[in-house]
Amino acid sequence: MTELSPLPFGATIGILGGGQLGRMLSVAAARLGYRTHIFEPGANPPAADVTHRVTTAPYEDEAALRAFAASVDVITYEFENIPTSALDLLETLRPIRPNRRALAVSQERMAEKDFLTGLGLATAPYASVKSSADLEAALARIGTPAILKTARLGYDGKGQERIMAPADAPAALAAMEGQPAVLEGFIDFSHEVSVIAARGLDGSVAAYDPGENVHEGGILRTTTIPARLSPAQRTDAVLLAARILNALDYVGVMGVELFVTPQGLIVNEIAPRVHNSGHWTQNGCAVDQFEQHIRAVAGWPLGDGSRHSDVVMENLIGDDIDRIRALSREGHVAIHLYGKAEARPGRKMGHVNRVKSRP
Amino acid sequence: MTELSPLPFGATIGILGGGQLGRMLSVAAARLGYRTHIFEPGANPPAADVTHRVTTAPYEDEAALRAFAASVDVITYEFENIPTSALDLLETLRPIRPNRRALAVSQERMAEKDFLTGLGLATAPYASVKSSADLEAALARIGTPAILKTARLGYDGKGQERIMAPADAPAALAAMEGQPAVLEGFIDFSHEVSVIAARGLDGSVAAYDPGENVHEGGILRTTTIPARLSPAQRTDAVLLAARILNALDYVGVMGVELFVTPQGLIVNEIAPRVHNSGHWTQNGCAVDQFEQHIRAVAGWPLGDGSRHSDVVMENLIGDDIDRIRALSREGHVAIHLYGKAEARPGRKMGHVNRVKSRP
Repeated sequence: MTELSPLPFGATIGILGGGQLGRMLSVAAARLGYRTHIFEPGANPPAADVTHRVTTAPYEDEAALRAFAASVDVITYEFENIPTSALDLLETLRPIRPNRRALAVSQERMAEKDFLTGLGLATAPYASVKSSADLEAALARIGTPAILKTARLGYDGKGQERIMAPADAPAALAAMEGQPAVLEGFIDFSHEVSVIAARGLDGSVAAYDPGENVHEGGILRTTTIPARLSPAQRTDAVLLAARILNALDYVGVMGVELFVTPQGLIVNEIAPRVHNSGHWTQNGCAVDQFEQHIRAVAGWPLGDGSRHSDVVMENLIGDDIDRIRALSREGHVAIHLYGKAEARPGRKMGHVNRVKSRP
Repeated sequence: MTELSPLPFGATIGILGGGQLGRMLSVAAARLGYRTHIFEPGANPPAADVTHRVTTAPYEDEAALRAFAASVDVITYEFENIPTSALDLLETLRPIRPNRRALAVSQERMAEKDFLTGLGLATAPYASVKSSADLEAALARIGTPAILKTARLGYDGKGQERIMAPADAPAALAAMEGQPAVLEGFIDFSHEVSVIAARGLDGSVAAYDPGENVHEGGILRTTTIPARLSPAQRTDAVLLAARILNALDYVGVMGVELFVTPQGLIVNEIAPRVHNSGHWTQNGCAVDQFEQHIRAVAGWPLGDGSRHSDVVMENLIGDDIDRIRALSREGHVAIHLYGKAEARPGRKMGHVNRVKSRP
């Protein structure tokens, strides 16, 4: 293992993206004695309320990117859709953690599936679709129901079309608007779990207890810890995540979504960042996923992610924010709002963690 | 009870003082969807790393105070030694919570003792000392050992002189440098506990489980939860704190330090703010003292402060910061650093909470 040499106290961690994940990363960085500098194209991002410094500029602004890099010691990110040109420039100036390969793999669905199956991990059956002929051939092999997704990553269920029968194919392809796509077979799964795993600069790996996810309309609704998993499944899930992190020489926290099936665990997707399904760690562990990520990125040893309490995390989406007054009167509820001014439908406004002492 | 009408999301809470308490209050305010504006005379205060806005100006700068007040919806503070002139101006512009009476009582030791004894609470025997004749008379009544303290509040044991025998009196009085002082008799106590209590805008009161404090050199070293108290003592401690809050029509969190003696609980001192001995709540409760204070100040219902885990809080003072690398490898340790650049002797650099699941 590499000897760790942590960033000195007072160093600055640059974060690409100023959403709620950047906001919670910034607070965690402060707890470890670091400052953060947020780079975000949009005005008044959630992270701006809790950071030392914000740059408001598009990812195409080379001068702003250079000034940002010059002011920070290391760069991380809160989302994976960062334009390649920005990364090409930034990586010549400062270390980017997690690394480019993790980003490349997770930005393109075909690359991700090929990477995962190359590691011997199970995924849904998949095929590249660039034309109606491709789609016809893919449907012949994979069958229906299936789901057509844009090859470049979408977010929260965007850019996805279900194909329940071959007759749905033309409309689904049209919805891709000419973008390359991937056809994925449906998986007959009993439930979805996710592993929030971390790998340090020294190569050590740690994982939180898997959580069980419930989605609504393509958006995560709740994560419950512990997930319904046998001890063997739990071990499989964690080892599988570790294999992914090691293969990528990864540094930071990753979210790995898994389908639980009678035939074993199937990887749904990976996210090279802190993950919504890991928010429960804020109230269930001494070291949460945000701090774990900052520890990795800053060259600290990974922290103790053992679970002291059971937790149910619930996202507050759109008008759910109106429930806050009632939630604020409930016991054992920890509130985490994101400071977003406007509650649009489908917008994540915050989350609550319902905490239960472990028996 | 008053019907609560919470500050709207996105409102700004002004905080006087930018130290570690302001820093942790700011993070809690963000979690509830508020922004903070820190007013602090010193450059680069700890709170600046996690706030929306900072004003760097002395408390005598009337224009800066006016601009600060105009930009915030309510004002609170992280320390009690705020110059009266600044408060006189600010209170004409925005609500100050906790109120002026709480500040006035806690800024002057005689006022505090008179207030507490007026409520029927026990304190150490005390006497006002403005001259050597006063001191002689006070020593004749109270006896030795005793402790002479400046009448205006000091901090972390500053401005305090022990008088072990009458011969020590002249030196102790000289150390007051002409300031009015208070002589306090020694209390024969077995240990010190503190109650972190809160009172909402609607008059409701909540209290955390009392913690047991150990000081070194006049500075808090550790707080252990639960404290060694009988059930009856625990009830007494909490009711006593509630009596203080109600008498002051208090809004916010208060720290009440108590000596445990065979004759009952004796009030050592009160602090009209979040308190170092309440830092354990960050990792022991769904709602910590910082959020509880913001809830009160912002007109929310008080939160659930029940304890899900036992905690030992340890302050990292001066060179203790060098222990961070070792501490970061320990299990069940939550780290909270304050982002202070220089580790001077006696300076609080951070704290750790050692978390233990409750059996």
